[in-house]
Amino acid sequence: MLKMPLYLAVLRPGGAKYWGTVRFPEEERKTMPLSDDQLADITAARENAQPTLRAVAPGMEQHLYTAQPVLDHGFVRVIDYMGDDSAIVQAARVSYGAGTKHVQSDEGLIRYLMRHWHSTPFEMCEIKLHVKLPVFVARQWIRHRTANVNEYSARYSILDREFYIPAPEQLAAQSTVNNQGRGEVLQGEEAARVLELLKTDAGRAYDHYQSMLSQDGQQGLARELARMNLPANIYTQWYWKTDLHNLFHFLRLRADSHAQYEIRVYAEAIAEMVKDWVPAAYGAFEDYRMGGVQLSGKGVEVLKRRLAGEAVTQESSGMSKGEWREFVEVFG
Amino acid sequence: MLKMPLYLAVLRPGGAKYWGTVRFPEEERKTMPLSDDQLADITAARENAQPTLRAVAPGMEQHLYTAQPVLDHGFVRVIDYMGDDSAIVQAARVSYGAGTKHVQSDEGLIRYLMRHWHSTPFEMCEIKLHVKLPVFVARQWIRHRTANVNEYSARYSILDREFYIPAPEQLAAQSTVNNQGRGEVLQGEEAARVLELLKTDAGRAYDHYQSMLSQDGQQGLARELARMNLPANIYTQWYWKTDLHNLFHFLRLRADSHAQYEIRVYAEAIAEMVKDWVPAAYGAFEDYRMGGVQLSGKGVEVLKRRLAGEAVTQESSGMSKGEWREFVEVFG
Amino acid sequence: MLKMPLYLAVLRPGGAKYWGTVRFPEEERKTMPLSDDQLADITAARENAQPTLRAVAPGMEQHLYTAQPVLDHGFVRVIDYMGDDSAIVQAARVSYGAGTKHVQSDEGLIRYLMRHWHSTPFEMCEIKLHVKLPVFVARQWIRHRTANVNEYSARYSILDREFYIPAPEQLAAQSTVNNQGRGEVLQGEEAARVLELLKTDAGRAYDHYQSMLSQDGQQGLARELARMNLPANIYTQWYWKTDLHNLFHFLRLRADSHAQYEIRVYAEAIAEMVKDWVPAAYGAFEDYRMGGVQLSGKGVEVLKRRLAGEAVTQESSGMSKGEWREFVEVFG
Amino acid sequence: MLKMPLYLAVLRPGGAKYWGTVRFPEEERKTMPLSDDQLADITAARENAQPTLRAVAPGMEQHLYTAQPVLDHGFVRVIDYMGDDSAIVQAARVSYGAGTKHVQSDEGLIRYLMRHWHSTPFEMCEIKLHVKLPVFVARQWIRHRTANVNEYSARYSILDREFYIPAPEQLAAQSTVNNQGRGEVLQGEEAARVLELLKTDAGRAYDHYQSMLSQDGQQGLARELARMNLPANIYTQWYWKTDLHNLFHFLRLRADSHAQYEIRVYAEAIAEMVKDWVPAAYGAFEDYRMGGVQLSGKGVEVLKRRLAGEAVTQESSGMSKGEWREFVEVFG
Repeated sequence: MLKMPLYLAVLRPGGAKYWGTVRFPEEERKTMPLSDDQLADITAARENAQPTLRAVAPGMEQHLYTAQPVLDHGFVRVIDYMGDDSAIVQAARVSYGAGTKHVQSDEGLIRYLMRHWHSTPFEMCEIKLHVKLPVFVARQWIRHRTANVNEYSARYSILDREFYIPAPEQLAAQSTVNNQGRGEVLQGEEAARVLELLKTDAGRAYDHYQSMLSQDGQQGLARELARMNLPANIYTQWYWKTDLHNLFHFLRLRADSHAQYEIRVYAEAIAEMVKDWVPAAYGAFEDYRMGGVQLSGKGVEVLKRRLAGEAVTQESSGMSKGEWREFVEVFG
Repeated sequence: MLKMPLYLAVLRPGGAKYWGTVRFPEEERKTMPLSDDQLADITAARENAQPTLRAVAPGMEQHLYTAQPVLDHGFVRVIDYMGDDSAIVQAARVSYGAGTKHVQSDEGLIRYLMRHWHSTPFEMCEIKLHVKLPVFVARQWIRHRTANVNEYSARYSILDREFYIPAPEQLAAQSTVNNQGRGEVLQGEEAARVLELLKTDAGRAYDHYQSMLSQDGQQGLARELARMNLPANIYTQWYWKTDLHNLFHFLRLRADSHAQYEIRVYAEAIAEMVKDWVPAAYGAFEDYRMGGVQLSGKGVEVLKRRLAGEAVTQESSGMSKGEWREFVEVFG
Repeated sequence: MLKMPLYLAVLRPGGAKYWGTVRFPEEERKTMPLSDDQLADITAARENAQPTLRAVAPGMEQHLYTAQPVLDHGFVRVIDYMGDDSAIVQAARVSYGAGTKHVQSDEGLIRYLMRHWHSTPFEMCEIKLHVKLPVFVARQWIRHRTANVNEYSARYSILDREFYIPAPEQLAAQSTVNNQGRGEVLQGEEAARVLELLKTDAGRAYDHYQSMLSQDGQQGLARELARMNLPANIYTQWYWKTDLHNLFHFLRLRADSHAQYEIRVYAEAIAEMVKDWVPAAYGAFEDYRMGGVQLSGKGVEVLKRRLAGEAVTQESSGMSKGEWREFVEVFG
Repeated sequence: MLKMPLYLAVLRPGGAKYWGTVRFPEEERKTMPLSDDQLADITAARENAQPTLRAVAPGMEQHLYTAQPVLDHGFVRVIDYMGDDSAIVQAARVSYGAGTKHVQSDEGLIRYLMRHWHSTPFEMCEIKLHVKLPVFVARQWIRHRTANVNEYSARYSILDREFYIPAPEQLAAQSTVNNQGRGEVLQGEEAARVLELLKTDAGRAYDHYQSMLSQDGQQGLARELARMNLPANIYTQWYWKTDLHNLFHFLRLRADSHAQYEIRVYAEAIAEMVKDWVPAAYGAFEDYRMGGVQLSGKGVEVLKRRLAGEAVTQESSGMSKGEWREFVEVFG
């Protein structure tokens, strides 16, 4: 009896001879406890470690061979990576040569690079992820163009019967103030009706997908056509490879509180891995990008006036109402 | 009664203050006869032509303000373009200077550039298209990363009730020889059943999309969530801008006979426009890329041996069966 | 007698059959007064204006057919452009649809896009420049990779005898505080000696370049080899084409006060053109990028504490000395 | 006495705290015999190999910690890599899923991908090189834009006194038939004069560079200005990182017999490493790209006619003279 996913065996980098579905059994979805078998598999995989002369990031090695569950059927896992914090420093010192000798520490140099938007040294690190995600999330994600992608093709192969169905606490109403956001969580009958519609429609669409494809007593519709019947919450999978600079850009936009929840959870899962991979770079990113604020020239002026004791209003700030609202959210 | 699309008025480059849906009334889809009103609109738009000192491609000007219908509800239209055949020549002559003076004609130089993969002069031309297309086509299209894209966002706005339903002659079975292709056209009951499923599922999914969004007596689900119920044959729209070199690459892959029909018709519609825009470059592209063949080293050897009178078989060719089959398809 | 450059005739977009050198006679370099002949040429060129249905930016049309002198022998001129402020708005409204209807004005929307790093609508505008610049400037410039380039090839053709020699007020010493900056202007004998060395070495290198190439009584060295003798202050030329988003990125880095003077003057010349081309976008860029400040999370905290009346020192700020110094430069 | 380069110690990935010059002593330039010390260093480095769970390419590991000499003072060395042949297969199988199960071997699949221009799986491999090269080679190389680069900055630091001086057999005359090529090797007095000019000018330029920079009894010119006096044969260094697909594109253009010798030797040195890294992919690349031929539609027609026994001439081929000449070079 197959109790646990086979992904440890199936998806070994460099060794996989075919590609199979990773399944998280329904009942184990949330907790992902490690079974004895699984622990044995991991142990075996880790015993297969091979020697390399390349830079090794110990914090990242621990993420290889594990898949971080995201949403109800999705995951993110690291397939491969190149470089570490030292690779960023090494590349910067090639560029700046003796000019950087006065910077004492590697971390100080990395913070300096981040602060001054010197992005090329961060491009010297690369990451390759295997991601399973709903199609509507994939459509948003793919807009980040500076990446290499190989996606599961529903033209060649048949998709699995797996759909994203939001957890009750994610079933939110349209925001009344933000055209692209969510408001309160739906309650009672409305929530129940929505859940029922999403589940039933997805199931029926998949049943019909299968019956159109079926070659049992009929020719069977071409896969490249049948797929058009499937809704945007069906899961797809891809390999996605990018450099650290572009990954930070992705994280800044997608781990942001304004990003849609369903992509944000992927960004957050990736961020946790990056933190272990390049701790100094991630620290600088957190301070200067995620936790930072971009001030306009007007914003700088207002702050100076307020520091000098002046009470500035929206009218006297020169800012639009929208900009003022965002400014006040940060500085009160 | 709305007889004709409003796109002439709504979508004027540089003048549009809002963006509206372009509709092709069901009964006029195929022929698109020009009504008197429409002719008047076009005349009016053309009277709005403004003087410019930039390169003007007369063949392309005629495509501005017209939308080329594709599939049942889609279209392609040119919003803007930069450069013409002369711009390619001009850029090449900057690079090669006096070195190109012996090449007599512009067309000869363009053919030389295409033959020798000198791609940068072709990058000096740029095109911006407005495309309406099914989501599953968009997903294939977006894989061409060297382009600028602005897509209609179903997170912000509500999608229209428009789905791609294949014409009967496109309702084909899975190919038995090609994993990513179509075989014979479905007939009789099977065809009828597939059509019925596609139409009914799309309609029902849209009804439920609307009922989940509705704020009539309920809060209404967030748009960013409700969209996940919509199937992949719903239409979306985008602005897509790329340079001529990358456009040729797109056309080579997507106007190819192995491309899926539903994206190929878009590629073919674009190819017709490009032919009018840069006739010399398009001619070279047709000869060297679309009509050309990439021979392997083994293929060259086999041809030489055959030209010398030898009868070469797959076994003696050194080619794999697959490569040999493709070779024989071309050269017999 | 040829008093003025022929570039008006030679470099007409769409009409040029060969490419020639643009010369600014030594004595007219600074003022570039228009001769009667030149005015006649411009008038003639402007009478050649052709009608187009594309978006036309009147502010940019005036820059076509003019070359903006930069440094002692360089220039920037616009060859072609695509789009205007309205094109940015148009693309944004495709994405955001009805979601943007509450934004009143085009300028407000453009400022919103810039403030929130929504960069894709800005990519819908494109510009093509012809630039003449010293090689060491070109080497810095080319690092901006998202652009299309055709450069004059010294492998094919012979370079002109034109070198950048700094004006006396630009002949500065190495900065004692900044590894990549200039300090005080050199004076007296030291300045004279430097100027003399730069001029003499460039002239001699060029003389030897010519004598190695010469086929007078000898074979003559290949051009692709002889060019290696030329110093980095020789002028080259290229066509450079990029979209507005990437151009703004270029301007942010290169029109910045920390950029090397010799590339900054090009960036500033381009900025002046962009201001006339897309005034609303440029205004937003100036406010949010050029005049703006990126605050770290620590910087935000310090400002909040100071606004609350606390006196914060570097020690209590959590910032490094370098970061604190930069912070204090802005906010005192 | 420093007999051998310190690069083994200095440039260890992940461990380098500063960056130093790699020197190949004049007398050891050609043979690069390994000294006992050096062998000890390599042994020590190899004992530092760390375990990793990532894909390891044994053929590539042997290139780490070695620098392949190129030209008189240049080199190429691998700093890091990601993936191997299996990673290409793995990515392809994600895309094509069950659709590829009929392809028997990994090598067959890789050849199929290469033959049909399915480039994305090749993008899943990445390489990072450290290259020392003359500036005029760097200027050609940088035109390949899809790469990450960190170059030594002469704005920050002082360049070393190292210039490329062609070996006598490379000192060729301008080709009389090819505007961008070399003809016969220069002989006797002309060769001697050219060598003398290149050496003397480079030496003098460097002497003056140093004397302008000197702060001995004077302020010293800023480095960002003094560098403009240096000729294009001075050596620079950079880190260059790209994916395998783009690397193959680079190799196709630069390892081609029409490429300039001075960049071709770098491409050839890299090709040797790639062969050890991804032998199956390199084999396919060699057969389909390097050894392959792109036929135009006209070329296909001519071959068919000739195979059918017809004697085709340039006039009856429909080809231009140039295209016919290139065609006949291949097929006689």
